[in-house]
Amino acid sequence: MRMLLLSNSRDPSGNYLVHARSAWSEIARGCRTALFFPFAGTTMGWDDYLALVREALAALQLDIRGAHHCDAPATAVAQADLLLVGGGNTFRLLHELRRRGWLAPIRHAVCNGKPYVGWSAGTVVATPSIATTNDMPIIDPGGLEALGVFPLQVNAHYHDALPPGHQGESRRQRIAEYLVLHPGATVLGLPEGNWIEVRDGQCHLCGPHPTWLFRSGIDPVALGQGLLPAA
Amino acid sequence: MRMLLLSNSRDPSGNYLVHARSAWSEIARGCRTALFFPFAGTTMGWDDYLALVREALAALQLDIRGAHHCDAPATAVAQADLLLVGGGNTFRLLHELRRRGWLAPIRHAVCNGKPYVGWSAGTVVATPSIATTNDMPIIDPGGLEALGVFPLQVNAHYHDALPPGHQGESRRQRIAEYLVLHPGATVLGLPEGNWIEVRDGQCHLCGPHPTWLFRSGIDPVALGQGLLPAA
Repeated sequence: MRMLLLSNSRDPSGNYLVHARSAWSEIARGCRTALFFPFAGTTMGWDDYLALVREALAALQLDIRGAHHCDAPATAVAQADLLLVGGGNTFRLLHELRRRGWLAPIRHAVCNGKPYVGWSAGTVVATPSIATTNDMPIIDPGGLEALGVFPLQVNAHYHDALPPGHQGESRRQRIAEYLVLHPGATVLGLPEGNWIEVRDGQCHLCGPHPTWLFRSGIDPVALGQGLLPAA
Repeated sequence: MRMLLLSNSRDPSGNYLVHARSAWSEIARGCRTALFFPFAGTTMGWDDYLALVREALAALQLDIRGAHHCDAPATAVAQADLLLVGGGNTFRLLHELRRRGWLAPIRHAVCNGKPYVGWSAGTVVATPSIATTNDMPIIDPGGLEALGVFPLQVNAHYHDALPPGHQGESRRQRIAEYLVLHPGATVLGLPEGNWIEVRDGQCHLCGPHPTWLFRSGIDPVALGQGLLPAA
């Protein structure tokens, strides 16, 4: 499997899909066509979202098609050299992928070597379930189970700050709640600016910040760049 | 219907269930027994949660029973003078209420005048759906539909701050996403320290901060204390 899973889409200056460029070039090498899934977009129309992504990735010289214009998921996935799953609302993304019949074709293709790039919601939907998303459940996704092509849970946009005086749960507390109900799971807290590369059967943590690893019964572990340690 | 719906449980100093005391006294007047639902508690055991609530509400001189010890929901609800639904994880709360058969008995009792107090998750679960919660979906609630005894969606712990540099969605953006998919809905953004009182067929907004009203196609409206304007 080959995957590039980004925590987020913008660099600290707000520029769209400009970081992790060498990882993008690596995973897109030899690809001529790509299929983009805009379904997480909710306040932005899906054609506008497609145009934004085409412009941001122009240097990769890909012919990018929008999945919202495709009626035959299995065929569309087979015809694309690269799958791109964009961020937005994770519940909306999973809802649309499920009801439009994309989950099985994507899962099959990625497990058979089709490269996959996700960012934010597109990263979370690659994991076993969307149970560690930060998003608001604006629509019922028909079950939390997701693609499961990446074996660990991911919390994207990871940080542990709270606005001053705020009494809601911190991100660590929320992940701790998840681990109470799922004591065998592993959650990666992927800060903004970081990403995961899956290649040659291995998982590499990349980016400027520590990535946090959460498991039941142990303190959170800060991991630097490099190969993810085996469980 | 008589309801007291608090945004949160602690005052700015961290003291538990001490604010809105006159509203508590008002709704608990004449009540001798209460039924407490601890199901939103996840990192805290339910017996510990029950003990915490009993201690916090000692001045009300209520005999408070824990719903996790009751096998017959309809009977337990009928025997209680007051229903108390505590905060924690909203998905866990709805999951347990649904699978243990509490939703219909609570709904029936509240619609027939049984007083209901909720805080945080206990407030959100009183609304039509939990689709405007801030919580992490740590378990599938079996559908987002909730008690629906309060007619508007509520976002508890409402604020619109983001940690510096954070690129995830703000609360307003999340609510805007919800309204794209549910254009006929109304969402109340209830800041910490505020609460809602429902009595005599009317809904009163209370507490020191503005409560925000969100509807599709209009700018958010800051509402002061007093009667909620009719739709």
